Amino acid sequence: MAASTTTALAPVSFQTHPDRYRHWKLRFEGDLARLSMAVELNGGLREDYELKLNSYDLGVDVELADAIQRIRFEHPEVRCVVLDGALDRVFCAGANIVMLRTSTHAFKVNFCKYTNETRLSIEDASAHSGLRFLAALNGTASGGGYELALACDRILLVDDRNSAVSFPEVPLLGVLPGTGGLTRITDKRKLRRDRCDVFSTLAEGIKGKRAVEWNLVDGIAPLSRWQETVTKWARELADSVPVRGTKGVQLDAIETPYRHVELTWDEATRVAELTITAPASGPQTHSSDWWVLRAFRELDDALLQLRMNLPHIALVLLRAKGSAETVRATDALLAEPKDWFVSEVRQLVKRVLKRLDLSSKSFYAIADEGSLFVGSFLELALACDRIYVLDDPERPIEMGVTELNRGHLPMSNGISRLETRFLGAPEKVGEILGGADAARELATFAPDAIDWDDELRLAIEERSSFSPDALTGMESNLRFAGPETMETKIFGRLSAWQNWIFQRPNAVGARGALTCYGTPTRPEFNTERT
Amino acid sequence: MAASTTTALAPVSFQTHPDRYRHWKLRFEGDLARLSMAVELNGGLREDYELKLNSYDLGVDVELADAIQRIRFEHPEVRCVVLDGALDRVFCAGANIVMLRTSTHAFKVNFCKYTNETRLSIEDASAHSGLRFLAALNGTASGGGYELALACDRILLVDDRNSAVSFPEVPLLGVLPGTGGLTRITDKRKLRRDRCDVFSTLAEGIKGKRAVEWNLVDGIAPLSRWQETVTKWARELADSVPVRGTKGVQLDAIETPYRHVELTWDEATRVAELTITAPASGPQTHSSDWWVLRAFRELDDALLQLRMNLPHIALVLLRAKGSAETVRATDALLAEPKDWFVSEVRQLVKRVLKRLDLSSKSFYAIADEGSLFVGSFLELALACDRIYVLDDPERPIEMGVTELNRGHLPMSNGISRLETRFLGAPEKVGEILGGADAARELATFAPDAIDWDDELRLAIEERSSFSPDALTGMESNLRFAGPETMETKIFGRLSAWQNWIFQRPNAVGARGALTCYGTPTRPEFNTERT
Repeated sequence: MAASTTTALAPVSFQTHPDRYRHWKLRFEGDLARLSMAVELNGGLREDYELKLNSYDLGVDVELADAIQRIRFEHPEVRCVVLDGALDRVFCAGANIVMLRTSTHAFKVNFCKYTNETRLSIEDASAHSGLRFLAALNGTASGGGYELALACDRILLVDDRNSAVSFPEVPLLGVLPGTGGLTRITDKRKLRRDRCDVFSTLAEGIKGKRAVEWNLVDGIAPLSRWQETVTKWARELADSVPVRGTKGVQLDAIETPYRHVELTWDEATRVAELTITAPASGPQTHSSDWWVLRAFRELDDALLQLRMNLPHIALVLLRAKGSAETVRATDALLAEPKDWFVSEVRQLVKRVLKRLDLSSKSFYAIADEGSLFVGSFLELALACDRIYVLDDPERPIEMGVTELNRGHLPMSNGISRLETRFLGAPEKVGEILGGADAARELATFAPDAIDWDDELRLAIEERSSFSPDALTGMESNLRFAGPETMETKIFGRLSAWQNWIFQRPNAVGARGALTCYGTPTRPEFNTERT
Repeated sequence: MAASTTTALAPVSFQTHPDRYRHWKLRFEGDLARLSMAVELNGGLREDYELKLNSYDLGVDVELADAIQRIRFEHPEVRCVVLDGALDRVFCAGANIVMLRTSTHAFKVNFCKYTNETRLSIEDASAHSGLRFLAALNGTASGGGYELALACDRILLVDDRNSAVSFPEVPLLGVLPGTGGLTRITDKRKLRRDRCDVFSTLAEGIKGKRAVEWNLVDGIAPLSRWQETVTKWARELADSVPVRGTKGVQLDAIETPYRHVELTWDEATRVAELTITAPASGPQTHSSDWWVLRAFRELDDALLQLRMNLPHIALVLLRAKGSAETVRATDALLAEPKDWFVSEVRQLVKRVLKRLDLSSKSFYAIADEGSLFVGSFLELALACDRIYVLDDPERPIEMGVTELNRGHLPMSNGISRLETRFLGAPEKVGEILGGADAARELATFAPDAIDWDDELRLAIEERSSFSPDALTGMESNLRFAGPETMETKIFGRLSAWQNWIFQRPNAVGARGALTCYGTPTRPEFNTERT
């Protein structure tokens, strides 16, 4: 239905390892990590485009996300990460245009969401792991390339009379810089809006002193003193934060079948079932075998499978099961982390829950016999669009809070899921944290044993009968009540506009700007302003 | 290019008068106003749809906006406005579906923007004129009908076993309730998000006690005590606020040619020129002839003409001219209003400036010879995407602040345009308010006499060459840096998603839900979740 050509994509894997990276070089020198972008021309997820000039596709970003995650877990000694480009005089040209042009609308939207999450994970590592990121722009950073730099703490640009930072999307492609760029120049780097306007319409970008004056970058350095300046800045950044730890924890591979998570689905009904289980016992080990780390990494992978490889699934029935004792004991550790590793695990749990909040599927939490929606697992229920609780004394469920629900796992709007839910009755938050009957207070519906099956069946059938787009739009509005942050603005405002533009003939039609870019054909616009 | 059928629309007039209302009955009884919706079946702006069941089109909303404005200016004795439906057991069925289906995408988007502004004008009158609004739902309020009620201070629903409030958009039409509804149920009435989810997917809506329990309405009353309860609630609301004044100011008709504003355009270049001029002298009169009231009402009309009747105009060159003395004297009055009327005028200036912020055209402020961007006129420049200042000592311009720039004309993000511009350098706000050279501090570009013509010409030509959609998305992101409010969420998040959905085949394609509604054809969805 869209004008774009669809090339079938093999299932995307979100698991990788530095030994298998094709697009990044990751090196460690003491408390510095150097992550160099060296995108393999023919290493794209599909074969019908070349990743020229360090342009990227989803596969490149999966490796980047993996690298950030591994630095946090496997290299606590690192205090500063230097991101640069391994090509001569090129940092990164942004998302690959041919890839975008030939992808379906759904893929483009999910691709942008994932790359946004990766950039936010850089900012999350800065805010919560005390890691510092230096974007060392050894050459031009365009579009998504500059957006990647914007996610870093500091930006240094080479001053070689050529290299610039730029957003060529509006003037050349008829779309937006959609990976947070328009939000970060106004709300993070706080450029004047008229300068943002000029910058975002200037295909060749801005370089040198003006880039510094406008606060597009933090500094420039001539080629002759490039490495020296990068090293100096990296050193300063590293020295500005304490050392987290010395011995890292290797992240084992996540493979299916998962250990603590189960994902099944039915293509015909478009319903998936996602169940997370806390094992009966699980002493904390300083390893990636710690059940909660593994369980949430598996959950993360399952959510990405649902988004990217199971696009037709409409509704996910989410269940939590297992040992309440284990969850309570684990949550107690996570609520007051005694070391960097436990702290990292909590941040990961937080990020996975955010990934759930931002997944364009409908989620029903199903609290039926044996269910365990307690603490971190209660957050899963609170992230769902509805909570169905079986009201049957003979088949009890467990639902309640732990210390973790006291704001330790905030949503992207900056407040807890309980606070978001009870914006209109904030006293309820205190009551539930104080031990009020959570199942009673939180159930959307609580059918008894007689009605349970029918009511659930109808609710499930109904959900998958609705327009998938209307559900996506509705959920994007209802899930994020209350305050907005840079993060919610990126997903709620910027991405919504980008989704709109990505669908418009002026971008993707036969004579749309995205379609025509790099071809001899000039774009032709429907000139109506809407 | 869109799947919708386009029926040519005669130019829309945004000027009306109660004597000419076709869809509303406006009556006054002491300090109460009663505004009854009685939509004329064949009174639509086009002849190819019937406005059944108090459904509305733009013409109905133009009258509503006019009524709210006139109550504020012409009836300062009014303390409470009762909104009800004049049809039996029907309040309002929302926006007319056939109208939506047969409108262009651009028209739908601009229609929704205008109706959103009208609803926000109700909340603005409540917040700043001390008017109270009672939605007396004498029958079912669906979709836009319930969204209108949500803009009121209190909602009373008749309890007749039938009448409900509802959002049937997602389940029946495959689109969103796009007039602020999804934002107001979460952020104004603060329903729990799971209940928002249920409510927004329940075509038949919610009635009676449950509607009260969920805070969808503030109360219910049986038919037998309906009028009595409406009167009692209206009385209580009126008594809760002070009387503003006794003698109103009649709003004269706005006609072209305007007196203080000039709008010209060139279809070929897609550039319009909009100039506002302060007259040489203008003592305040308690009449609609006061220049500033008239000038901003004319500007408001000009902006609506640009949006709705000149859709192909890409760029507006905005100039301000005239007597600095007049502007300074007027601003001094507006900054410290001595009576309700002057206060109302300031609120109107504020709303017109917001309309400019939200108009999907590019705006360049042009400060060339004789320009007067001072005080309220400086806000116009600050609302523009760029400010071009002629740097020529022989052709001086005037640019500077008055008391009004000290936060008296806030943007919809809740802060001033100066604060928004200098998010990254808040000390600049104080410097400019303290008398720093505003032209120097605020100019985006300041070419000298030699470069002026060429530089401006190039900037103008370039702007109109860009994708109109990309510009709309870009400007929507860059104009609203900093905090978000319910108002910015409505235009930035909710509307962006609605624009996206309005463009999608699942809504407007041959088998889309909006297309099929009310026909024997069932919708068929592309089931990919994006």
